[in-house]
Amino acid sequence: MKFVHLLLAIFSFATIFAQNPSVNDSLEIRKIYDMSLLNGKSYDWLEHLSNDIGGRLSGSYEAQQAIEYTKAELEALGLDKVWLQPVMVPKWTRGSREYAYLQTGPGATTELDICALGGSVPTAPTGLKAQVIEVQGIEQLKEYGKENIEGKIVFFNRPMQADLIQTFKAYSGCVDQRYSGAMEASKMGAVGVLVRSMNLRIDDFPHTGSMSYGDLPEREQIPAAAISTQDAEYLSSMLKLNRETQVYLKMNCEQHEDVQSYNVIGEITGSEKPEEIMVVGGHLDSWDLGDGSHDDGAGCVQSMEVLRLFREIGYKPKRTIRVVLFMNEENGLRGGNKYAEVAREKGENHVFALESDAGGFTPRGFNFNSSVAQFEKITSWKSLFEPYLIHLFAKGGGGADIGPLGNSGNIALAGLMPDSQRYFDYHHAANDTFEAVNKRELELGAATMASLMYLVDQYGLD
Amino acid sequence: MKFVHLLLAIFSFATIFAQNPSVNDSLEIRKIYDMSLLNGKSYDWLEHLSNDIGGRLSGSYEAQQAIEYTKAELEALGLDKVWLQPVMVPKWTRGSREYAYLQTGPGATTELDICALGGSVPTAPTGLKAQVIEVQGIEQLKEYGKENIEGKIVFFNRPMQADLIQTFKAYSGCVDQRYSGAMEASKMGAVGVLVRSMNLRIDDFPHTGSMSYGDLPEREQIPAAAISTQDAEYLSSMLKLNRETQVYLKMNCEQHEDVQSYNVIGEITGSEKPEEIMVVGGHLDSWDLGDGSHDDGAGCVQSMEVLRLFREIGYKPKRTIRVVLFMNEENGLRGGNKYAEVAREKGENHVFALESDAGGFTPRGFNFNSSVAQFEKITSWKSLFEPYLIHLFAKGGGGADIGPLGNSGNIALAGLMPDSQRYFDYHHAANDTFEAVNKRELELGAATMASLMYLVDQYGLD
Repeated sequence: MKFVHLLLAIFSFATIFAQNPSVNDSLEIRKIYDMSLLNGKSYDWLEHLSNDIGGRLSGSYEAQQAIEYTKAELEALGLDKVWLQPVMVPKWTRGSREYAYLQTGPGATTELDICALGGSVPTAPTGLKAQVIEVQGIEQLKEYGKENIEGKIVFFNRPMQADLIQTFKAYSGCVDQRYSGAMEASKMGAVGVLVRSMNLRIDDFPHTGSMSYGDLPEREQIPAAAISTQDAEYLSSMLKLNRETQVYLKMNCEQHEDVQSYNVIGEITGSEKPEEIMVVGGHLDSWDLGDGSHDDGAGCVQSMEVLRLFREIGYKPKRTIRVVLFMNEENGLRGGNKYAEVAREKGENHVFALESDAGGFTPRGFNFNSSVAQFEKITSWKSLFEPYLIHLFAKGGGGADIGPLGNSGNIALAGLMPDSQRYFDYHHAANDTFEAVNKRELELGAATMASLMYLVDQYGLD
Repeated sequence: MKFVHLLLAIFSFATIFAQNPSVNDSLEIRKIYDMSLLNGKSYDWLEHLSNDIGGRLSGSYEAQQAIEYTKAELEALGLDKVWLQPVMVPKWTRGSREYAYLQTGPGATTELDICALGGSVPTAPTGLKAQVIEVQGIEQLKEYGKENIEGKIVFFNRPMQADLIQTFKAYSGCVDQRYSGAMEASKMGAVGVLVRSMNLRIDDFPHTGSMSYGDLPEREQIPAAAISTQDAEYLSSMLKLNRETQVYLKMNCEQHEDVQSYNVIGEITGSEKPEEIMVVGGHLDSWDLGDGSHDDGAGCVQSMEVLRLFREIGYKPKRTIRVVLFMNEENGLRGGNKYAEVAREKGENHVFALESDAGGFTPRGFNFNSSVAQFEKITSWKSLFEPYLIHLFAKGGGGADIGPLGNSGNIALAGLMPDSQRYFDYHHAANDTFEAVNKRELELGAATMASLMYLVDQYGLD
């Protein structure tokens, strides 16, 4: 090759780079994935959050430890700013382990696997014993009428629909029983509630989760517990044999005064448009039964990893990139609301927010809450994700914590969509532990999030 | 609506159905998925194969039990024909548990997690003790030259490449160490071989797998074992501290005479083109350390389920659909070769074969070994799979057992591609057990296979 040809070749190569951003972009994205898979930090962070700290229910000692740990880790990354954002959170404690048994006759009892739903009132110290009536949901509860419900424990047993391919849809179709079951049953004179765990498997884990009494006065609030799918099946079959079957429950959970807590925030200040803020986050609190590895330790460490990956590959974002570890998603959403409130007060301009709160499984894509134009711009980047087997770009979604930001201006919201098949095996249960998270799947998720953040930073979404 | 309008509406509805097969097809495919997810049998079959029978190495009692069990289960489905196809298979036994330790000085030993590679010769009854030399692969082994290798145990320690998104590519890039390492090391005068397990995680499980001495005479065959990734890292760091480090190995595996075994075959004879045969299959044998749930119990029960699903939804295939549970994929491929040989002898016309041998994880798509026209026809069906999140239609692939069919005529071969991230956590190791398989993921795979078989049966691939 003559020298002039070489020069021409270099020139055309440079021109291609300048004209077609996707060549450069695909190289940057490759760097992001390589760094996450070969030299990632997310898995180590998760191990500490899960194994050394554990379940991080709002207001708990563990939640406070997690705040201090993640703040220190973000500081060690050398971000431009790291701070705590104060927020008052509800504090509910489970107390000693719940106990329940089923009684089919004198002396004939079988223990049941249950756990109090988050926010439930306790039973009397001596427990609660009553006849059980099974319903398939709130509608059927109302059809039965007060005369059939009064004085009984209502057993909500509508299972998640296994034929729905996306398990979150199956969850949405059932969770009203858990959230509003106790309130509705109380209005009909029930004395307690048992709810089939939101779990597609048949196993022995009761799955907790939030519930609400709405406006019910305190004296009308009745104890509410989740029962494992295995024992839900068992209880249902026992009721078919004997409608007089009684269940005994003992729970000593307690609602306390609100306590001080914090969102943990770190940022890389934008080099060109520092006033345009892009958020990436997950929620730092978790339920107390497991150690919250999938829900949502994974989302937190992936979000932290996005900023670390940018640092490690030497990418200097044009816009301000902020990681936010929200407090209290599980039973109050106080952190998400507080963050949006402060942003409004300060007149901050949030242009994009990405949340990871669907588990640390193999990433499949994203869902978006955005304008049509924004969605079209994002989907034009789809081919850049193909080498990483990311294929789902769906409308509708975002995330609970970033939701409150959605009312301010022209912001686009996005949620990471991992493979959902196993999520509800672990969700809010004692088996949501570090061992249930696969290192590669977690790291692929972090890299996928960083790649989207990179592209939005490069090209904006106006 | 007047009666005439109603008639018109019904007529147009019927016309749409007749003209546009995809409407009918999408309904049939929905039925397939619903049946698999709501009323599937694959998981129950897998539980029996895994928990009641266990690891099914060729020539073992367990392999024979699996033959009898699956034959009986296929017969219970009321297929048109069920039979056993005789095939002679190699028989290798592990003997008592392998033992190994590392010695850094007098009396300073640490136990190592190892297992014999399938087909290895044993050590002497008193074991083998020698200095260890680490290499990153066969190339480096040769560079070292005889003078550095002679009398030593060669430790192949090249890890799988974590930055490859499809883990099977990382496996392909490493497995030569396991398959040919002992043969090559023996030629250089080595006395034994340790191979880093083909595993992307760092953990304590040694992963077995097939190896070959090629044409080496018996006296030159040296013992070959896999070492867990954790202990590979440990051994490597000890060698950095002390190049004189010795390892002791004791293995009493044994190669026996070939024994009689069988492929298990069942078929639904085609209603219109019975002479055109479509195969769906997996391999019934497995390694002996775990119970072969992912490799390849999953593929077997999914293949059986394809025929059951057709029966249950009342679909009568035009072509002959044959399920083949191949024997001896792991250490000989005798079953796959025999099936193809008999097919050639009988002049059978095989038009399509689909294999599932990549684990029971969430299905992502298929890879194809086919003509361009066949590939284009198949990809034209892609949208029918979208509701089930099946998106990968890749060229190149098929499967080991159906490979030998590929030389006969115009057959197209396909392999199910499940998500591959976790596959090598379990592959050929003691943790490839029933608990590692998720029911929904397994069932989605079976339905995805049945849907492709249905479409090929409907429209052919000429």
